[in-house]
Amino acid sequence: MSRLVNINGKFLQETAASISFQDVSVQRGYSVFDFFRLVRNQPLHLEDHLNRFFNSASEMRLPVPKTREEIKQLIHELVWENELPDSGIRIQLTGGEIADGSDFNAPSLIISQLAFPFPTQSMQDNGMHLLLHAHQRQLPQVKSTDYMMSIWLQPLLKENQADDFLYHNNGIITECPRSNFFMVSPEGKIVTPANNILKGITRMKVLMLASNYFQVEERDIHIDELQAATEAFITSTTKQIIPVTRINGKEVGNGQVGEVTKKLTTELRAYCGFD
Amino acid sequence: MSRLVNINGKFLQETAASISFQDVSVQRGYSVFDFFRLVRNQPLHLEDHLNRFFNSASEMRLPVPKTREEIKQLIHELVWENELPDSGIRIQLTGGEIADGSDFNAPSLIISQLAFPFPTQSMQDNGMHLLLHAHQRQLPQVKSTDYMMSIWLQPLLKENQADDFLYHNNGIITECPRSNFFMVSPEGKIVTPANNILKGITRMKVLMLASNYFQVEERDIHIDELQAATEAFITSTTKQIIPVTRINGKEVGNGQVGEVTKKLTTELRAYCGFD
Repeated sequence: MSRLVNINGKFLQETAASISFQDVSVQRGYSVFDFFRLVRNQPLHLEDHLNRFFNSASEMRLPVPKTREEIKQLIHELVWENELPDSGIRIQLTGGEIADGSDFNAPSLIISQLAFPFPTQSMQDNGMHLLLHAHQRQLPQVKSTDYMMSIWLQPLLKENQADDFLYHNNGIITECPRSNFFMVSPEGKIVTPANNILKGITRMKVLMLASNYFQVEERDIHIDELQAATEAFITSTTKQIIPVTRINGKEVGNGQVGEVTKKLTTELRAYCGFD
Repeated sequence: MSRLVNINGKFLQETAASISFQDVSVQRGYSVFDFFRLVRNQPLHLEDHLNRFFNSASEMRLPVPKTREEIKQLIHELVWENELPDSGIRIQLTGGEIADGSDFNAPSLIISQLAFPFPTQSMQDNGMHLLLHAHQRQLPQVKSTDYMMSIWLQPLLKENQADDFLYHNNGIITECPRSNFFMVSPEGKIVTPANNILKGITRMKVLMLASNYFQVEERDIHIDELQAATEAFITSTTKQIIPVTRINGKEVGNGQVGEVTKKLTTELRAYCGFD
């Protein structure tokens, strides 16, 4: 049976849920979204995700057609209807139909539910292989729907037997296409990029938890520093924490999943109530 | 009465024409298009636009679900149905619904017709004011639907009483968000950027016509060269040739529409059969 999706307050069968071909999201790629996890039917870090969603909309000058409270109600109703207790919720705000090309009078709000794309056990156990790539996401502070470059680059991953990209901008590490990057410095500090990135909700939680045990630095990381890193990992809503054991074919540290990464993974799982 | 639009070979009322909210164009901004003009019901430079459309699709690894001949037939049928003899035709290829995030098995082909957005007479007579902005379009050789940056930047135009942006990348002039840029050098040469741009169909025609009368150079233009330019203009399907008389508030040449620009405008109009 088809799941339900909510568009502008109306519940629709997912297979029948559509938007106008004249929407600016379709015609001009102008749209924002957010995505969070349900744990036993409870949205995880909902307030943080809604904060970011409203911020993305505001940065893009897109009026949100429902209040924060109305959106929460719609999420709860959708969750109740669909009965998918461990899944993901996606909220998207489109630009609305284009009248004169720059007016966003009637954006559409789409709330959908999907199977949660859990990372593989192998990735968690053995870590990922990242491929450095020079690219700067446009309006990085906005969670926009612009993933053109990362989709376009996919064949490079296969060619290099890599799992994901690690973007840098003139040698300064920024982020992965859908995750934040962390490294452990030779001095044992937890370091993560500060600028030109999307500030992930999981990134925020990891920084908070890490500061209980380690020195933490949010700052620019030069590509050269990666060679000396003892550990590295990425964070995202779907991946939580995944170790990075190779970058461009070279081992990070000793190429094994490190103790700091394991410690933070355990702390994060406990904090999120996964255990 | 609503116009008709064709989606995947089916004619639909424009007001009822929609695509799935799960299409990768909506969810991930992955889509290409092309746009051309009808002159007395005849598509202008149709073969050139179809060449570029198929090239954009190929670059993005999007399979086109209709043959070139089928697309032409659909265009002719749409034109016959809608009876809008001096309008524009837009062909868009979306990524199709996302299954596992990287498979483009079923892109949608949307052919729509719209009122042609003619430039104002004042712009043609007095020229435009361009605002320099540091930005490089992603995959510039592809006519993608990624216009996020130019939409986001719109308020800057109003603030600076400018008409459009002129992008540069580390001081090398590239293009306007939807047009190509040309300048006339102090030696009387026609110069236009060669790299990291979308090669416009009108640009191609202007280069061809200009070479009958002037020396023509396709090469990098440094931002510093703009100061010495005697004339400048932009080209696009919707604008044809529009003079550029100011850049960042400074006059180009003597600030008047120049003779070279006028000559090329006349030649282009004649070549396109507008007179």
